[in-house]
Amino acid sequence: MSKLKAAIIGATGLVGQNLVKILSKHPWFDVVSLFASRKSAGKKYCEAVKWYRDYSLPDDIGEIRVECMENVEGSYDVDVFFSAIPSDIATYIEPELARRGYVVISDSSIYRMDDYVPIIIPEVNPDHLELINMQRTSRNCSGFIVKTSNCTAAILSLSLKPILNLTRIERIIVSTMQSISGAGYLGLPSMAILGNIIPYIENEEEKIEQELPKILGLFCNGKILPAQFGISVSCNRVPVYEGHMINVFLEAKSEIDAINVAKAMETFIGLPQKLNLPTAPQRPIIVRKEPDRPQPVLDKDALNGMAIVVGRVRNDNISKRYLKYVVLGNNMIRGAAGTAVLIAEILRAYNFL
Amino acid sequence: MSKLKAAIIGATGLVGQNLVKILSKHPWFDVVSLFASRKSAGKKYCEAVKWYRDYSLPDDIGEIRVECMENVEGSYDVDVFFSAIPSDIATYIEPELARRGYVVISDSSIYRMDDYVPIIIPEVNPDHLELINMQRTSRNCSGFIVKTSNCTAAILSLSLKPILNLTRIERIIVSTMQSISGAGYLGLPSMAILGNIIPYIENEEEKIEQELPKILGLFCNGKILPAQFGISVSCNRVPVYEGHMINVFLEAKSEIDAINVAKAMETFIGLPQKLNLPTAPQRPIIVRKEPDRPQPVLDKDALNGMAIVVGRVRNDNISKRYLKYVVLGNNMIRGAAGTAVLIAEILRAYNFL
Amino acid sequence: MSKLKAAIIGATGLVGQNLVKILSKHPWFDVVSLFASRKSAGKKYCEAVKWYRDYSLPDDIGEIRVECMENVEGSYDVDVFFSAIPSDIATYIEPELARRGYVVISDSSIYRMDDYVPIIIPEVNPDHLELINMQRTSRNCSGFIVKTSNCTAAILSLSLKPILNLTRIERIIVSTMQSISGAGYLGLPSMAILGNIIPYIENEEEKIEQELPKILGLFCNGKILPAQFGISVSCNRVPVYEGHMINVFLEAKSEIDAINVAKAMETFIGLPQKLNLPTAPQRPIIVRKEPDRPQPVLDKDALNGMAIVVGRVRNDNISKRYLKYVVLGNNMIRGAAGTAVLIAEILRAYNFL
Amino acid sequence: MSKLKAAIIGATGLVGQNLVKILSKHPWFDVVSLFASRKSAGKKYCEAVKWYRDYSLPDDIGEIRVECMENVEGSYDVDVFFSAIPSDIATYIEPELARRGYVVISDSSIYRMDDYVPIIIPEVNPDHLELINMQRTSRNCSGFIVKTSNCTAAILSLSLKPILNLTRIERIIVSTMQSISGAGYLGLPSMAILGNIIPYIENEEEKIEQELPKILGLFCNGKILPAQFGISVSCNRVPVYEGHMINVFLEAKSEIDAINVAKAMETFIGLPQKLNLPTAPQRPIIVRKEPDRPQPVLDKDALNGMAIVVGRVRNDNISKRYLKYVVLGNNMIRGAAGTAVLIAEILRAYNFL
Repeated sequence: MSKLKAAIIGATGLVGQNLVKILSKHPWFDVVSLFASRKSAGKKYCEAVKWYRDYSLPDDIGEIRVECMENVEGSYDVDVFFSAIPSDIATYIEPELARRGYVVISDSSIYRMDDYVPIIIPEVNPDHLELINMQRTSRNCSGFIVKTSNCTAAILSLSLKPILNLTRIERIIVSTMQSISGAGYLGLPSMAILGNIIPYIENEEEKIEQELPKILGLFCNGKILPAQFGISVSCNRVPVYEGHMINVFLEAKSEIDAINVAKAMETFIGLPQKLNLPTAPQRPIIVRKEPDRPQPVLDKDALNGMAIVVGRVRNDNISKRYLKYVVLGNNMIRGAAGTAVLIAEILRAYNFL
Repeated sequence: MSKLKAAIIGATGLVGQNLVKILSKHPWFDVVSLFASRKSAGKKYCEAVKWYRDYSLPDDIGEIRVECMENVEGSYDVDVFFSAIPSDIATYIEPELARRGYVVISDSSIYRMDDYVPIIIPEVNPDHLELINMQRTSRNCSGFIVKTSNCTAAILSLSLKPILNLTRIERIIVSTMQSISGAGYLGLPSMAILGNIIPYIENEEEKIEQELPKILGLFCNGKILPAQFGISVSCNRVPVYEGHMINVFLEAKSEIDAINVAKAMETFIGLPQKLNLPTAPQRPIIVRKEPDRPQPVLDKDALNGMAIVVGRVRNDNISKRYLKYVVLGNNMIRGAAGTAVLIAEILRAYNFL
Repeated sequence: MSKLKAAIIGATGLVGQNLVKILSKHPWFDVVSLFASRKSAGKKYCEAVKWYRDYSLPDDIGEIRVECMENVEGSYDVDVFFSAIPSDIATYIEPELARRGYVVISDSSIYRMDDYVPIIIPEVNPDHLELINMQRTSRNCSGFIVKTSNCTAAILSLSLKPILNLTRIERIIVSTMQSISGAGYLGLPSMAILGNIIPYIENEEEKIEQELPKILGLFCNGKILPAQFGISVSCNRVPVYEGHMINVFLEAKSEIDAINVAKAMETFIGLPQKLNLPTAPQRPIIVRKEPDRPQPVLDKDALNGMAIVVGRVRNDNISKRYLKYVVLGNNMIRGAAGTAVLIAEILRAYNFL
Repeated sequence: MSKLKAAIIGATGLVGQNLVKILSKHPWFDVVSLFASRKSAGKKYCEAVKWYRDYSLPDDIGEIRVECMENVEGSYDVDVFFSAIPSDIATYIEPELARRGYVVISDSSIYRMDDYVPIIIPEVNPDHLELINMQRTSRNCSGFIVKTSNCTAAILSLSLKPILNLTRIERIIVSTMQSISGAGYLGLPSMAILGNIIPYIENEEEKIEQELPKILGLFCNGKILPAQFGISVSCNRVPVYEGHMINVFLEAKSEIDAINVAKAMETFIGLPQKLNLPTAPQRPIIVRKEPDRPQPVLDKDALNGMAIVVGRVRNDNISKRYLKYVVLGNNMIRGAAGTAVLIAEILRAYNFL
């Protein structure tokens, strides 16, 4: 199999950097084009990018001339576009690329709730890829858009999947402690967050509350029937560099045992594991037994950031129908760039690429 | 009215320092004795204490010779003991002082669940002071012990009180982000928490889940009938200096409107306000309208740390019976030292002192 | 004496907020006008400003309508303008105000090295105020500009003044650890500084190396002869909220004893102390004996942030001519807003106002 | 060549963990024994250790039963002991092991200034290994002790070596910003350092001022003649996780050009590079051209933490004899564990092992 040609749009941002890093050593993809904003365009990538974590860029990628992402009118020798750009720009770039026949795997939030655009977490809902065919038909073009979810929704839905294999859920309540990298490099002034907590992230609760039922929904007769449980989220920004921590409180429809849940989580594997995809972690969920885990500093890079780490799975005193646990995921990798690459791999495995 | 003589046990610890600070300018109390561990005993207080925040100690208190708290066999010319010591020591010191006729207002966790020991949040359950008489009778001594609650329970119960005036509660779910000062000066190594979150605080969830129903319980026929709602807590330690932040999700027995709740909170006053007690904040609950408040850095010292600050009061999408909000309180002041002093004031007002 | 009318330009920035705070309770000045950027203009100050520290704004100041600082063509009933604006704007606003007869006390860096513009640290070089007369004459207007220095230079020069009363200095070497507030509220992304150090602050070393000799220079025959010692600075940004910490290594022209230096520092008073000016700290230099002081968290607000705190004054092993010490100052107060107000007071005392 | 058998004393501490990590994949050494304090003794290493950074322990090392380091009377089938224990214990353990014929490579500070004990930075002073023979003769035993230096001295001396190849130095002045990991896991309470700076580290300045002249001294006639330049240090603890940052101000005996110094640094290689030792970084000094580098977050792991990173090499305005630069090194790796392993390799290369 010859390698597929990949382009990254928004290559200098935090998610873009992680895409470059993952794809630079990927067995199936070659990075051939990098797009960024006008001020980076024309520069070599190694000159345009300001790495947020230390990482030695392979010479060949560093030498690529960055193209301006605002002009996507050209014809590109590219098999797949990875998009990690703000929603306002994605709004016109992504459909335009799809219209012209390209495959777009996108981390931006726009169009996630579109009926024909699947949000894919490869271990959770690979059957939703079927929407692609409907998207192609309805739009009458061979290109298409697939979305990763909101970073917190990605982590949450993966942790919920094995539970949904055991029981039906009535309601989940979620409190998040999200790292500063989730806001982008310039997103959060240090004066605002050093030694502080901000109990609010604009639009974040809405995204999670909307996307989660779609991701965990049933694909049926060409439509996704959203999962029917209630969901209520409260989001907080905390002075942590990377990794989103989530407190989950779950109300099942019937009694459920924490020990069984922990076991179901740690033995859970999905299609990426069965297909042995290159970016798939051996197990997507690590369950820690220690009372004080997960922790961002210790667990954010578990299995290269592709595994989420769960701890403190326990019933509460109110009822055996109630369960609570803590889950941590790398917002940059599992929450964005890593899942995008995993989607590309599963698209390839299923001949969408 | 001549001033009452106050002693502080555990005067060099973080809560002890806050007790000194509040009492040093108090119109009703004079600090006459300071007790601490053996290694401080014999030194002047100004030499024994290592202030954790800058504060200019009044000369007279600084000159007091610290006494060893392990020997409390003496006879003291003291009207009230404020105790801010670890539970293992409090276990024998506090009952011994009570037995010998002294009044003990204590921040330690031991004996909080004792049937005859009231946990008092003066704005919330001043009627529980009645337990003191039963404690005296049952133990056959004039001295007695009154407890402040766990710091998080203090903040929570105060925020819940005006809601309970509006509706009955079915269940509350609580996720906390607690500051490092809650662990004591030496409690948390910097290597453990810098840029990190620890999703666990030993025994904390149990304390909150036990104490809250007692505080909000009904005093009836000489007993406290615990409040009947369910409560489930998940506690987290975050790299914040002072101030505990709490995400509250509440399920009421009937529909409840967030706007009414916010109004009930901000107009709420309790007995300390009615009695115009010296340490009582003008309003015990401040409700902020901005979406991104409260924040520890900005709000921890609201009304000298005696007001809790609530924000984001809102219904959720699941049902009008569901309400969520964020609340911040100063764990050192409202959560410990300030409430202890407010208890002393209400004891005085009701002639227990 | 009736109160003087003060205006603040750049009133919503961090230094502007500190000016408002200090002036709001000032016995000599009334804040009558507030100027800020176009996006704040027209709003009430209480709506335009986003406090970076909690502070209760007096109602009367909060009600002032913010004016647009880009239009200063009006005629104002103002006795003194405090300017805390970026240099690019100050470049034209400040001379224009002076030209039209107003007194401008400015925290911006532009014009500091102008021959006729004095940089004043009231305890250090009040005799440089004489330059004002020369400025007026040369520019042929009654208005004038006086500058505070760079924040680090303010702290440094105050610490050096009592040493220069004892000995001549050959060279000083300075390593700074500067807090994030020095960069302005939006100046430093949290991703750049959380758990990190940036060993560079643009133009900062140059400013300190230029301004210090001017401040400590000799006013003689209508000119300032810069102080003749060498100075070499290396600046670092650290994850501290407020307060600049400085390591000073000093090479005197002759032997000098650390004990005498410490004594000279702690007994030092300047003209503001002799005149008992309202904002003057009782002693401008506090010398701590503990080996581990000063510390930003503990010492930044010493004497309302107007005192600098010195520690670890010691000779080194190389030679008795070498001395080293640590000094901390509040960059917002002593380094900017507080010194500006102190300048206004000394101007008033000397009838320049 | 069969592998040498290595033991680690103090295996559960921060430096011990780094020794385990480096040695676990080492081509020349096998970890066969692990020693720690009494409370770890008897447990499997994987149960006794609490990793401070996430790291997957190889199964075979994790299964080793930890032995009590207080009893070293046994006879061990060990070729080299790596010691990373507190000085009070090292005082008797290390000489005892040497007396009984073992080779001890030690990170503890005791005995560093002993005339017969070399402090080795393999790129800087490998010729000092000759002291080993004198140690053996004088103590009449085949075993011996070699020391790594204080972590800051290790970083500093490596940065100075290429400069000393260019010019003679009159004096160096050093201001450090040291990370919390340097104090050990429990060394620094979070309340002391969060958002703060402590301008003092006990005994640290003395160690650096003593060790540096020894490391950079001339081995001559069986003795080390200490380097003759003056040195003055001021140490600060900052809220950084790992990596020590150092501001260096250097006074050369003659004029020296910053560009030449930068070139000499980046082209510098030492014996470990020439011998191609397994742990030797390709270049021990990386020189960054950007004005804002090095930074702990970005540069602490450069070349696996074995390279130091230098930036801002520049002359100052006082004189061309004056030079300043910033240098960062990983205190755990280059400052301790990595250098210890590099010493073992050079000992092996020279048949001391």
